[in-house]
Amino acid sequence: MKNFFLPFIILFSFTVLAQKEEVFIRKIYDEALENGEAYENLRSLCKDIGARVTGSAEAEMAVEWGQRLLKAANFDKVYLQEIMVPHWERGTKEVGWITTENGKLLKLDILALGMSIGTNGLLSAEVIEVEDLDALRNKSAAAIQGKIVFINKPFDQKLIKTFQAYGACWPIRGNGAVEAAKKGALGVVIRSLATPTDHFAHTGSMHYEANVNKIPAAAISTKHANVLSDWLKEGKVILKMEMDCAQFADKVSYNVIGEMTGKEDAQIITIGGHLDSWDVGEGAHDDGAGVVHSVEALRILKELGYKNKHTLRVVLFMNEENGNFGGKTYAKIAAEKKEVHIAAIESDRGGFLPVGFDVVGDSTQLKFVQNMYKILNPFQIYRLEAGYGGVDINPLREYYPAMLQLGLAISSQRYFDYHHAHSDVFENVNKRELELGAAAMSAMLYLLDQKL
Amino acid sequence: MKNFFLPFIILFSFTVLAQKEEVFIRKIYDEALENGEAYENLRSLCKDIGARVTGSAEAEMAVEWGQRLLKAANFDKVYLQEIMVPHWERGTKEVGWITTENGKLLKLDILALGMSIGTNGLLSAEVIEVEDLDALRNKSAAAIQGKIVFINKPFDQKLIKTFQAYGACWPIRGNGAVEAAKKGALGVVIRSLATPTDHFAHTGSMHYEANVNKIPAAAISTKHANVLSDWLKEGKVILKMEMDCAQFADKVSYNVIGEMTGKEDAQIITIGGHLDSWDVGEGAHDDGAGVVHSVEALRILKELGYKNKHTLRVVLFMNEENGNFGGKTYAKIAAEKKEVHIAAIESDRGGFLPVGFDVVGDSTQLKFVQNMYKILNPFQIYRLEAGYGGVDINPLREYYPAMLQLGLAISSQRYFDYHHAHSDVFENVNKRELELGAAAMSAMLYLLDQKL
Repeated sequence: MKNFFLPFIILFSFTVLAQKEEVFIRKIYDEALENGEAYENLRSLCKDIGARVTGSAEAEMAVEWGQRLLKAANFDKVYLQEIMVPHWERGTKEVGWITTENGKLLKLDILALGMSIGTNGLLSAEVIEVEDLDALRNKSAAAIQGKIVFINKPFDQKLIKTFQAYGACWPIRGNGAVEAAKKGALGVVIRSLATPTDHFAHTGSMHYEANVNKIPAAAISTKHANVLSDWLKEGKVILKMEMDCAQFADKVSYNVIGEMTGKEDAQIITIGGHLDSWDVGEGAHDDGAGVVHSVEALRILKELGYKNKHTLRVVLFMNEENGNFGGKTYAKIAAEKKEVHIAAIESDRGGFLPVGFDVVGDSTQLKFVQNMYKILNPFQIYRLEAGYGGVDINPLREYYPAMLQLGLAISSQRYFDYHHAHSDVFENVNKRELELGAAAMSAMLYLLDQKL
Repeated sequence: MKNFFLPFIILFSFTVLAQKEEVFIRKIYDEALENGEAYENLRSLCKDIGARVTGSAEAEMAVEWGQRLLKAANFDKVYLQEIMVPHWERGTKEVGWITTENGKLLKLDILALGMSIGTNGLLSAEVIEVEDLDALRNKSAAAIQGKIVFINKPFDQKLIKTFQAYGACWPIRGNGAVEAAKKGALGVVIRSLATPTDHFAHTGSMHYEANVNKIPAAAISTKHANVLSDWLKEGKVILKMEMDCAQFADKVSYNVIGEMTGKEDAQIITIGGHLDSWDVGEGAHDDGAGVVHSVEALRILKELGYKNKHTLRVVLFMNEENGNFGGKTYAKIAAEKKEVHIAAIESDRGGFLPVGFDVVGDSTQLKFVQNMYKILNPFQIYRLEAGYGGVDINPLREYYPAMLQLGLAISSQRYFDYHHAHSDVFENVNKRELELGAAAMSAMLYLLDQKL
């Protein structure tokens, strides 16, 4: 008879535990929605610092800003982690036109792609349009030689998750210049990687390859891509462009780190976003939102007097956009120090409505996260699926292949309206959506600390 | 042995049927996202017609607009349903100030509440603040007599669903004037029913009661509500306001109806939103979105060559905002004609991200809808819960208590930023979010037609 009540006791303990977690997560959301600091922190990052491309004065100030913010939060430790980063500047000239023989002329919405060389004066050449990289590779060198290649692949609007449409166009931005140069092109312009048809050009990283001629690369707005394509159907189009962007010697920069030291052991759970942005707009959604989400997640736990088991570490990564040296260095140093990393959460999909978490792990880890559904669903977190964690935390997997990684999943419908464009500004972030993202990050950080 | 394969055949048929539905719903989404007309229709309704309060010239033009749109879609029938509606006008004067004895003065962000009387010249009185209707009822008549009552209840930001915060404040807007007048107040101003702290005043319906003095009622912005409350902590505040809004004799107006006649029987499934809006902004989210969602839902089925079993009827209801005579008349005429109504779907929660459907029905009907989860989830429709259908379709339940009603559930985080305010304009609607709403409505209409 002694064990008769045991199942009930277990069930009771389990229920009490679940209730304890529910109560605490409710407190996390209350704090985020009533006394949240994420929105004001984002305003400050966007307006007091602004766009902060790696290597810029603004990026240096963002490091100081981050350090001040983490110190003000009174975490147990706040420190910098030195890294070497690339240094590219857009320069002061960035302009383009298209003209036709029958007298049409249009000034282009244009942005150099990040890491592109300049044009060294006015570049002027006939345009040839291709639909994607395969079409470019299939062209003869004779057809491309001496021309500016225009790669005009629109987003597939049918894809419900816009990141899939982005993923399909992404190689064009990265490899377009290399593939065009192999055929003798003088320059490349791409249709902006964007959802809407409007006048914003969207920049982003491109690269060169050794032994392939470096040619300038730029993005034009989707509206102007349509115009250019229409004009090309009627006849010859000349594109003139001048850009004096350039790359300089690598510089020293920093990841900014704060932590609440664990009580029971030295296992580490990392939460973070990236501090750098592109150099246009204010990097509000990409990834100011991830930065303030992550800081707020830890601040809330501290504010609520939570006593963490593991070490909870917020990392503001530098240089996600063009090299990921922040993420790579963080992982390398962790391994060198023989730190024990058991989990990491990243927010790098904007400050829109949070809907769940993408899970990187084996089936047991996926199941572990999916078991949180019931406790998170009252807060409209419903999508707990296998997916991708984030660019910054991804390098940790090389050294900690068994660790759990999570990416905050955000409704992606509006992300590529603003991504890498002048329109990625604070005003395009909604306060409550941002706060709900911070609360979701905090709730997950708490659940991982409790359950791992 | 004859029946040995039967379970497999049933399973196979079931799978084939489910696949057929999946394939068709994929086509619905493709059409909405690639060739959708919802966004352009909404632009036209917002820009070619504009705000369209019941009884206005714009409302009359909206009826013509709706009729033209349904006729252009080539539905089997397009017709008007005559109704009598109230006619209230904001007039040309609408202004307010607060002043203090120590020299402070502020011009208020102010909007008369819909159906309010005017002030008949400049109304000037001392302000008394109360936190809600209960607090007002508990005040002595002596404290209220001759004053302007300021009801200052903010939204509870902790509530994840903002409609719950709205619901808690909603009686203040409707009954504030009556309760204040019972105590001898000269006027009432309320804190706008809105999520953010900003400079937009939000209007909405209020009412008077027989045998209670009619006093003017207005809403002020949440920012100015905070200022007024702060000043009242320091001492006496005088509020001066002038409004010449007024109610006129009832007018004739119309519900606008289009239908695809059913093949098998005369059972009717209604889908709709409301054509009227408040008289500020452009009624983009409330409820231009619902109008174009509903028209697009039926247009897509027709475009895809779908042969409907039941009669599918799109209704653009008039007068949801201040009387609901469109919805009431539609239900009454349906019953008089002995129509058989089996289901109705309404969209009246904005053009933001759709997340599911609220279900009005018994447990079997709820289960019936929840069984669609698997087929809708790939399109990010995940919330199928008991809830509310919509104001326009609700009167049908009086005559058809067993019918199934569904309300398109939309992420509500941004709805009360724009609701009933000058900011409810086309530019604040995102194209893809709107299109996904139309696709969700169309998919549900199709599934109901197939499965009922």
